[in-house]
Amino acid sequence: MDTTQLGYLAALLTTGSFLPQVLHTLRTRDTRSISLSMYLMFVCGTGTWLLYGLSIAALPVVLANALTLLLSSVILVMKLREVVRTRTAKSAP
Amino acid sequence: MDTTQLGYLAALLTTGSFLPQVLHTLRTRDTRSISLSMYLMFVCGTGTWLLYGLSIAALPVVLANALTLLLSSVILVMKLREVVRTRTAKSAP
Repeated sequence: MDTTQLGYLAALLTTGSFLPQVLHTLRTRDTRSISLSMYLMFVCGTGTWLLYGLSIAALPVVLANALTLLLSSVILVMKLREVVRTRTAKSAP
Repeated sequence: MDTTQLGYLAALLTTGSFLPQVLHTLRTRDTRSISLSMYLMFVCGTGTWLLYGLSIAALPVVLANALTLLLSSVILVMKLREVVRTRTAKSAP
């Protein structure tokens, strides 16, 4: 396996890994053991990688991070909804 | 901000994002909403990025992925322990 193939395999695995988490979260509707700070940082980081890929015109970096950004954003939105739901429940009279 | 700085910022955010998840998991001991498949794939992917970084002799890629591999492996081990604990409890007479 040459270096480029190694890079594509790595991108496939790390990008693809968020798909089972999205499916797990959609199925269980449970995000309690997921860290909000992780996904806030991760979504910002992936967005920055996307800008980086655009700035060096590297299509694989752009594609991998665009997909990762989409998947991790779904998880972030579901986590934020759980946080809002929990706070609303606590503040209810 | 030039391209190299953008890359370092992106690496800092995506690598650093696993630290709050490790702390959250160590504090709550709860991994139920974390996908085992995600972390199996992610740890393999990060290991592959590490090999990729070594093969192109890119120190930032090596350092970022070595740290991400360490942090995500901690989460994977805690998730595996929960899976084993749950299965043992189910098969107990």
